[in-house]
Amino acid sequence: MSDPLYLEDFFVGQRFEAGGFSLDAEQIKGFATQYDPQPFHTDEEAAKDSFFGGLAASGWQVACLTMKQMIEAGPKVAGGQIGAGGEIRWPRPTRPGDVLAVSCEVLEVKPSRSKPVLCFVTLRTETKNQNGETVYVFTCQMLTFRRPG
Amino acid sequence: MSDPLYLEDFFVGQRFEAGGFSLDAEQIKGFATQYDPQPFHTDEEAAKDSFFGGLAASGWQVACLTMKQMIEAGPKVAGGQIGAGGEIRWPRPTRPGDVLAVSCEVLEVKPSRSKPVLCFVTLRTETKNQNGETVYVFTCQMLTFRRPG
Repeated sequence: MSDPLYLEDFFVGQRFEAGGFSLDAEQIKGFATQYDPQPFHTDEEAAKDSFFGGLAASGWQVACLTMKQMIEAGPKVAGGQIGAGGEIRWPRPTRPGDVLAVSCEVLEVKPSRSKPVLCFVTLRTETKNQNGETVYVFTCQMLTFRRPG
Repeated sequence: MSDPLYLEDFFVGQRFEAGGFSLDAEQIKGFATQYDPQPFHTDEEAAKDSFFGGLAASGWQVACLTMKQMIEAGPKVAGGQIGAGGEIRWPRPTRPGDVLAVSCEVLEVKPSRSKPVLCFVTLRTETKNQNGETVYVFTCQMLTFRRPG
């Protein structure tokens, strides 16, 4: 286990790799049935006639599996990875058989004057497929804490 | 079943209610174990010493269950609800026992000149708890299609 990261440990341009995951048709359909039950996520045949032209993963599944990777293999943030919000994009669909890689980069470090203990780091998390194409970007305002003492 | 909504059917200020859902501690811990395994989402005791001061749902769980409501009880969009991305915020934690209500409002309707068939509607989806407090806001660029013919 590496030491947890406090505000003082982050700097602009800092990068972290966070491993990856793959998705097959059964996983795509299983998640979508629970959380995003639309034909292009749950039914190969119906998906052919949709905007996606074939089965595609719910963007929320990509977001959730990316989050899991960030926790299990990404930066060890003191106090945990707590996002207040941010900008989310799915530039490209994720398909059955895709192998995804997760990484993130620090875009901004913002010490707070009003709440000196509690600060924000802007972290851009990006998930790319096996062709190096970006399928998901989450630019998040992440809570960070000053190192105590 | 209501008729599916095309670009021409949307207007700024249009609102849709999309029902609601509730969350208990077991559901919170179950989801987090799969997708956001952090102590404040998976362990009541450990959560007491965290930023949240007690068990809180993963923001992604709130996003996913909100999506499910939007599909099952929200606007019937022609071609499906397909989001290209947007701004996401979790202004407040969601707690065990919370009862959430989902609604959405059209903020902008943007016909496209370059791709006349394919347009975007800016849709703000909001999830509030039983006290009327907003726990989740997703302001999304949603694909919409012109009515054929």
